[in-house]
Amino acid sequence: MKKIQGIIPPMITPLLGEDTIDRKGAEQLVERMIAGGVHALFLLGTTGESQSLSLACRYEFVELVCGLVAGRVPVLVGITETSLTESVKLAEKAKECGAAGVVAAAPYYFAPSQQELIDYYTALADRSPLPLYLYNMPSHVKVFLEAKTVAALAEHPNIVGLKDSSANMNYFAQLTYLLREKPDFALYVGPEELTGEAVLMGADGGVNGGANMFPELYVAMYNAAKAHDIEKVKELQKQIMAISTTIYTVGKWGSSYLKGVKCACSLLGIISDDFLPLPYKKFEAEERAKIAAALKAIGAEVK
Amino acid sequence: MKKIQGIIPPMITPLLGEDTIDRKGAEQLVERMIAGGVHALFLLGTTGESQSLSLACRYEFVELVCGLVAGRVPVLVGITETSLTESVKLAEKAKECGAAGVVAAAPYYFAPSQQELIDYYTALADRSPLPLYLYNMPSHVKVFLEAKTVAALAEHPNIVGLKDSSANMNYFAQLTYLLREKPDFALYVGPEELTGEAVLMGADGGVNGGANMFPELYVAMYNAAKAHDIEKVKELQKQIMAISTTIYTVGKWGSSYLKGVKCACSLLGIISDDFLPLPYKKFEAEERAKIAAALKAIGAEVK
Amino acid sequence: MKKIQGIIPPMITPLLGEDTIDRKGAEQLVERMIAGGVHALFLLGTTGESQSLSLACRYEFVELVCGLVAGRVPVLVGITETSLTESVKLAEKAKECGAAGVVAAAPYYFAPSQQELIDYYTALADRSPLPLYLYNMPSHVKVFLEAKTVAALAEHPNIVGLKDSSANMNYFAQLTYLLREKPDFALYVGPEELTGEAVLMGADGGVNGGANMFPELYVAMYNAAKAHDIEKVKELQKQIMAISTTIYTVGKWGSSYLKGVKCACSLLGIISDDFLPLPYKKFEAEERAKIAAALKAIGAEVK
Amino acid sequence: MKKIQGIIPPMITPLLGEDTIDRKGAEQLVERMIAGGVHALFLLGTTGESQSLSLACRYEFVELVCGLVAGRVPVLVGITETSLTESVKLAEKAKECGAAGVVAAAPYYFAPSQQELIDYYTALADRSPLPLYLYNMPSHVKVFLEAKTVAALAEHPNIVGLKDSSANMNYFAQLTYLLREKPDFALYVGPEELTGEAVLMGADGGVNGGANMFPELYVAMYNAAKAHDIEKVKELQKQIMAISTTIYTVGKWGSSYLKGVKCACSLLGIISDDFLPLPYKKFEAEERAKIAAALKAIGAEVK
Repeated sequence: MKKIQGIIPPMITPLLGEDTIDRKGAEQLVERMIAGGVHALFLLGTTGESQSLSLACRYEFVELVCGLVAGRVPVLVGITETSLTESVKLAEKAKECGAAGVVAAAPYYFAPSQQELIDYYTALADRSPLPLYLYNMPSHVKVFLEAKTVAALAEHPNIVGLKDSSANMNYFAQLTYLLREKPDFALYVGPEELTGEAVLMGADGGVNGGANMFPELYVAMYNAAKAHDIEKVKELQKQIMAISTTIYTVGKWGSSYLKGVKCACSLLGIISDDFLPLPYKKFEAEERAKIAAALKAIGAEVK
Repeated sequence: MKKIQGIIPPMITPLLGEDTIDRKGAEQLVERMIAGGVHALFLLGTTGESQSLSLACRYEFVELVCGLVAGRVPVLVGITETSLTESVKLAEKAKECGAAGVVAAAPYYFAPSQQELIDYYTALADRSPLPLYLYNMPSHVKVFLEAKTVAALAEHPNIVGLKDSSANMNYFAQLTYLLREKPDFALYVGPEELTGEAVLMGADGGVNGGANMFPELYVAMYNAAKAHDIEKVKELQKQIMAISTTIYTVGKWGSSYLKGVKCACSLLGIISDDFLPLPYKKFEAEERAKIAAALKAIGAEVK
Repeated sequence: MKKIQGIIPPMITPLLGEDTIDRKGAEQLVERMIAGGVHALFLLGTTGESQSLSLACRYEFVELVCGLVAGRVPVLVGITETSLTESVKLAEKAKECGAAGVVAAAPYYFAPSQQELIDYYTALADRSPLPLYLYNMPSHVKVFLEAKTVAALAEHPNIVGLKDSSANMNYFAQLTYLLREKPDFALYVGPEELTGEAVLMGADGGVNGGANMFPELYVAMYNAAKAHDIEKVKELQKQIMAISTTIYTVGKWGSSYLKGVKCACSLLGIISDDFLPLPYKKFEAEERAKIAAALKAIGAEVK
Repeated sequence: MKKIQGIIPPMITPLLGEDTIDRKGAEQLVERMIAGGVHALFLLGTTGESQSLSLACRYEFVELVCGLVAGRVPVLVGITETSLTESVKLAEKAKECGAAGVVAAAPYYFAPSQQELIDYYTALADRSPLPLYLYNMPSHVKVFLEAKTVAALAEHPNIVGLKDSSANMNYFAQLTYLLREKPDFALYVGPEELTGEAVLMGADGGVNGGANMFPELYVAMYNAAKAHDIEKVKELQKQIMAISTTIYTVGKWGSSYLKGVKCACSLLGIISDDFLPLPYKKFEAEERAKIAAALKAIGAEVK
């Protein structure tokens, strides 16, 4: 498989209620992102609130989205679970539905040591019927996939890349350096605020939540960085930061980002409702008005 | 239901391999603990490695153990999950098998705010067919169930108690104080090193992993503390610390406790094998010899 | 020197302004605590806001209080600094003024490893002209003095005890157990919410901030626990928790405890002003009214 | 004062023993860095181990280095302390010696809230006779100077810039965005692994420890990034990472970086000895040999 490069939106999971998928919203969202030029899709990640969905709902969503995409771009599926068995089953489902790869953060209840992470990921890669991407998400899983651990795992033939959501670019610089002899191993950055600089320095792309709302913007950033057009990168960066510092900061708690993206997608008319499964709840009228104002301020049309 | 008081061992899950229950080991373990005088059993907690088991395996284990116990002591079942739906389904299974209550730590991928925790637990208690015990496990779930949050949740008619594994006794003292007008709300302490002092200060008991190996010891501690026999408490505390500072500290990483308890149970002949699901692995020969030596040092008979 | 046992208040530093000691307030506070039966005094600890004072001010305060106490009870002096040289100079000053011992938390800018902590404390104990007490304060210094580290340091002839402010009683239980053959090594607990249970389990006393306000209460708790009078311990515990859950929780931030104790001392007429050096500031009228109400609720006379 | 742009090495403090400055080493180091084209010097920062030095030693070092530099480049002096008074005194000394500015991390014993940080820095800037640079160093001081806090403080006429050592580039991107209308406010990045990308995205320079050893390399990186020469940036980045992943990782603990830089400087013949004050100690023969090998591997001449 050719290495995927570019913008891979971590797709939100449009819901009408608990474990009830908004199938029309999903379709509209997929079409919007593909029309916006994204290079792949990533389902059931943190932005997809995978952990808050029942397993049955996750299976349904994989099937739905793979069908909607119908091979136009590669689909990556999040299989993060604390049980290896459940992760492998999700990977099998993804394979069956035609996905191109699977993505797994570390098991997130216990906090394994680096050696235990190597053992775990090796077993997962051995059993996964699809290529596996590592996912460094220390704020949610409590452990860091250290750069040396990633370098060791990159030797496994079925481990093909990593998404880093740490925002620690010293770490990312280490990865880029340690894996410099592995040009087929993909390195993606999670926070969209960093896609520009990461791609300038050699990363393969961004897994950026904002691309649910504005896919063209992030694709433009990827292209500008790839082309070493620094002035364009700086100009686009201002637009990205205008989103990041408003839409993602309306709520009071750590859930602001998730609530903000879903609320914006519903205001933009992409999805029917911005239902979030517990432990979160969608914004109420006051915050919704702030999101609407933020969208208008950046020139978006609110429905 | 009468409040459960005393020692409630967090039962290990005896396994022959991945998601393969050691049914004979489970039976021997249940019989040993009941013979040792424990006041209830707690399945599928942290010590039970619930998060590392497939859901099917968890269902099987609930059914098995409830059948083995056959009503001799109350059985509490861990339903900790990140998906509310999956937690409720586990609670329904527990109810169907005759369990007396269910236990849930906070959803452990996202890190909810205190208000979000209240919303989450309220929804869970509303839907649970069995009384719900809160479980404060900040090292694994990243958030603390603050004392005021617990006090608010204690108003819910289906929330009946809390197990605290924080080892922060300032917090436990706050709980004891804030809930002093709620004598039916149960407060249990997780770390066995603290059962003595917690019960002296008014706690209802201990959810102590060591009771898988030596149920009588922890029951004796509970009784001594309940009877305000300080000299006896201090004497038993030395025995408990002799276990805690040896058997739980052989490994290099945070998994030492889990590996130590299972290894000891297999050396004592209670279970057939000390298999641990990934991300952990059972001790190898060198560490096993150290556990054996530690057991002999405290006078236990190693098989 | 005989081991100090009992209540050792961590004395606040009464101030009229930045680095300006309230000498009359200090005198009244010292007399109140000695009249209340405290067993020793501890100056320039966390409650004494030592780190926020200039070195000159700290020297002045040591001289003042040692003079006021005039040998009636032992005085311990906090010498916590990040520079070993400055710590030793403070210890020399303490010795010159007649103090009985010095107390040092770990250097708190860098986060040393356990071996580096052993090297550091060994050098400090070697050079200190007074017996040295270790001070475990992980929330402020970022590192835990692990139980094995303390046990190793307890071999040094000039290291005579430890104050633990972690509130982690599993750790304290480990210390008690590992040091059981060192009856001359003193173990004190910091959080006053834990003095009762710690002394019941064998601790030597409490370094309790509330004793600035109500020395008799904490002395009574020490005596009840020492006498194994559990009913009395539980009764006094309620009084201590009534203080802890009100006076220490009025502010919004981590500084609530410090501001609360100083505000209460000024409302009780012990000190002239409740000035706190930056980064903190004393409570304004609204919070001050809440402290006054809390004091009245527990029957204290507010001036 | 014109905004300083470029490489500002955080100078190590060459020592012959505790609080004994290696004056010849300091001179050689200063000359090497100035000859290497650095744009300013920063004394008494984290790399300068300021917190481990006595105040007298810090005063001596400021005087010495300002004299050696003699106005050839601006000198910034670290005044980080937990006592405001001591910080102001250090700032006065810096002014007296001819320094151009002072740098302060947050008070590092207590963990202030954001509002308390604003109060603290405002008072410090009011009293400082030299322009003040903020220093975000969350790993050592426990608190993050949030982007909004920095933006608020940037309104103070005597606060002129910030050094960020968090390595969190999402935060740095926020700073760059929020301060886009303040072109005179300087933003420097601490980790040298990030100087390239930070300057590409608009930062003013790097406070990079490696410039003690190889000033030209970091100056070249600054120039390449400033000129938007991405290919050159990538090439230099490999050299910087070759240093970072070897010389800074020889030790076992968090002190590896400090020990590595000093050891390398002594091997390069810049300083006479690589003495580190406690809680750290210089490398022993085995680690020293590894540093020598790493230096040789990157083509440096070891003496």
